[in-house]
Amino acid sequence: MLTHIDKQGNPSMVDVTEKQVTRRTATARSVVVLPDEVLQHLVNGDLMSKKGPVFQTAVIAGIMAAKKTGELIPLCHPLGMDNCSITIQVNQQQEIVIDCTASITAKTGIEMEALVGASIAALTIYDMCKAMSHDILIKETKLMEKTGGKHDFKRA
Amino acid sequence: MLTHIDKQGNPSMVDVTEKQVTRRTATARSVVVLPDEVLQHLVNGDLMSKKGPVFQTAVIAGIMAAKKTGELIPLCHPLGMDNCSITIQVNQQQEIVIDCTASITAKTGIEMEALVGASIAALTIYDMCKAMSHDILIKETKLMEKTGGKHDFKRA
Amino acid sequence: MLTHIDKQGNPSMVDVTEKQVTRRTATARSVVVLPDEVLQHLVNGDLMSKKGPVFQTAVIAGIMAAKKTGELIPLCHPLGMDNCSITIQVNQQQEIVIDCTASITAKTGIEMEALVGASIAALTIYDMCKAMSHDILIKETKLMEKTGGKHDFKRA
Amino acid sequence: MLTHIDKQGNPSMVDVTEKQVTRRTATARSVVVLPDEVLQHLVNGDLMSKKGPVFQTAVIAGIMAAKKTGELIPLCHPLGMDNCSITIQVNQQQEIVIDCTASITAKTGIEMEALVGASIAALTIYDMCKAMSHDILIKETKLMEKTGGKHDFKRA
Amino acid sequence: MLTHIDKQGNPSMVDVTEKQVTRRTATARSVVVLPDEVLQHLVNGDLMSKKGPVFQTAVIAGIMAAKKTGELIPLCHPLGMDNCSITIQVNQQQEIVIDCTASITAKTGIEMEALVGASIAALTIYDMCKAMSHDILIKETKLMEKTGGKHDFKRA
Amino acid sequence: MLTHIDKQGNPSMVDVTEKQVTRRTATARSVVVLPDEVLQHLVNGDLMSKKGPVFQTAVIAGIMAAKKTGELIPLCHPLGMDNCSITIQVNQQQEIVIDCTASITAKTGIEMEALVGASIAALTIYDMCKAMSHDILIKETKLMEKTGGKHDFKRA
Repeated sequence: MLTHIDKQGNPSMVDVTEKQVTRRTATARSVVVLPDEVLQHLVNGDLMSKKGPVFQTAVIAGIMAAKKTGELIPLCHPLGMDNCSITIQVNQQQEIVIDCTASITAKTGIEMEALVGASIAALTIYDMCKAMSHDILIKETKLMEKTGGKHDFKRA
Repeated sequence: MLTHIDKQGNPSMVDVTEKQVTRRTATARSVVVLPDEVLQHLVNGDLMSKKGPVFQTAVIAGIMAAKKTGELIPLCHPLGMDNCSITIQVNQQQEIVIDCTASITAKTGIEMEALVGASIAALTIYDMCKAMSHDILIKETKLMEKTGGKHDFKRA
Repeated sequence: MLTHIDKQGNPSMVDVTEKQVTRRTATARSVVVLPDEVLQHLVNGDLMSKKGPVFQTAVIAGIMAAKKTGELIPLCHPLGMDNCSITIQVNQQQEIVIDCTASITAKTGIEMEALVGASIAALTIYDMCKAMSHDILIKETKLMEKTGGKHDFKRA
Repeated sequence: MLTHIDKQGNPSMVDVTEKQVTRRTATARSVVVLPDEVLQHLVNGDLMSKKGPVFQTAVIAGIMAAKKTGELIPLCHPLGMDNCSITIQVNQQQEIVIDCTASITAKTGIEMEALVGASIAALTIYDMCKAMSHDILIKETKLMEKTGGKHDFKRA
Repeated sequence: MLTHIDKQGNPSMVDVTEKQVTRRTATARSVVVLPDEVLQHLVNGDLMSKKGPVFQTAVIAGIMAAKKTGELIPLCHPLGMDNCSITIQVNQQQEIVIDCTASITAKTGIEMEALVGASIAALTIYDMCKAMSHDILIKETKLMEKTGGKHDFKRA
Repeated sequence: MLTHIDKQGNPSMVDVTEKQVTRRTATARSVVVLPDEVLQHLVNGDLMSKKGPVFQTAVIAGIMAAKKTGELIPLCHPLGMDNCSITIQVNQQQEIVIDCTASITAKTGIEMEALVGASIAALTIYDMCKAMSHDILIKETKLMEKTGGKHDFKRA
């Protein structure tokens, strides 16, 4: 069943009144593929220092966007957050891997916050590199893990 | 060169004072892959009528998010918009294809608006389907085309 | 006494520190009167299917605005929400009746959220119909019921 | 025709690319009816001085909300504003009459801004008086006049 | 140690999962120095009545901004608020003294909310007086007191 | 005259309909004084690299806040921006000097944007250092220069 559609077919929030307050966490990932020449600029700047401005700007943008999730996703509950952190790494295929982990003590989960944080961090990298090339691909965005709700989830 | 980094290595906006006001358009795409059983629910509801609530909610969320691009992407210029539209279709591989087209008459391009619109529409579909499964993948997000700036772009 | 005015005559929030956390609900209503020819378009489209785009867009806009209440009404407390739902019906006088119900478990009530949700849903209907006529009237907006605070309220 | 619905029945913005930049104005009105005992408090405070805090808070809230119109109404264009002013008076029936006038030099009209400004000013008065009574009615909200678009409008 | 920097040197929120929910308060102050001729206008208008529009507008702007703290300061937690009040006085040196006090029952403190509230109130006074002179100085902004966290603080 | 107060003593925007579109710039400064032990941490981290995370986070927060000026300052016009940049330096008195420069081609000036950008950058530094000490002072915030309006201004 689509939980966000009411009996008349209209969109609606999910009533969480009776749900239990538990500690909940979620981790989401976005992967960005840059053309070689763009990646080279980042490697010579950002990656070596691990605190160059592109990745740091993306980290901040992602955290700030995660806090806005309830404003962006129409039927999400407005939530606080106990924590939100984003790490950005380059994997062996030279892809940029963004992981956003969020946690909260609340009646409802925080996976949309993690997904929004990872997505906006990826789009911020896009924005800061696009003057060099538009051949940039946000290759995938997905939930990696969640805990604390009715069912835990861990991507195989 | 990374245009959003100033000489001291700090993040900065790109000065558009001297740029010309032209009509600019951009189209971006996000592709969402749902597990079969979730897709079936959508097909029996949303897809047949082409105006069921999941896709319409996603369209509205995407348009509203596109208008917030300057607030989400740290170094984007705050812009108006002449138009923004989102279409959602299911392709032959049973993937959900979201296309967001935005246009403006301004000094700077609107590709980030199109990318944010497509991304948040995709995340809204995720949000509305996630009670059935978290095995959902936003398979890719990318720019398809832009016109009106220094260089036009059209993905091959 | 005007609770939002302090002893010096300045606007101020109401201190809820000592209030009890209880479950609180509120329902508000806005009624929109459209000229006949506009209503006819809606009836032939939206109303029959009960999920046409005008009413669904209004439902989503209202829910999203209800979440922004603390940002719009200067002295409202910033609140989460356990639930928010909006129904739109046409009554026997051919008026569009929008009911917004919100609930929360908190120290303070949620009637402003319900009123903002109903009002913005009404204004969204206005916006989507105004190309046909500006002879549209939001005939009334009022609280129908509230529970969970010091005094329950139910409109006679 | 419903201009905000595309050919597939999806909600969409109206493309204003080809529209002319003209000076446009709009005035909207909301009328609030308070129970006698509440009105008395306002008369003895706010109304006599004409700058008491309830009405001034409502004026500010309305202006700030008018600036957020593009964020609240899903298919509104994001716009600047050349001016926005709100007046609040008590008419002979002892009703509170809120008039919001907005103007802009742009491709599209500003009537939704005026309507949002008047509505949120009315809801702010509601919020500041509701501790005394919930028997408050926002009796009507409507456009009074608009100029500068394809068709001027003036309510009879 | 800089608590907002993680081990890799990236900005991050502080994890408050394990912190205790306590009642927390904070008071911050901004001091504005206006040129004599501007101050005179205020004194003859605002100060005597104690509810003139400049100071009241500043009070409202400050309270509304305090509610937006989590949106403005990148690594602040999104928080509710039990109360927020702002007082504005003129001291013996003819300086405008703005005190913002905020309180919450939560896992983390509310001093940034108080500081943002005082700062935006000060900038609002600036905005409303700047047509007369730009020789305006926000002389200082600082925390005066906080209670309820690990360490109380009171400025000597 | 207080330009933001109308004839009835109510707050109002300034009507810019008849003003000319010109290129306008503004630079504002905030100065932050940190206790020695906090400054030492920054010097050993941020200052030497000139791109350490505290200052970069502050730069991004300031730019993003400058874009929100119309939302924070009640009677400011909502504006775009052609450019916004923030530099942070340590002067000979070991004070942190934040300069925010904004520019626009519009009917009204951009000094509030520069002031908001500098202020929020200063408060972000405060937020990231406050775990070490609350003995932090935002020593002053002021306009340094503006061009393009009726009168240019340059602080002596």
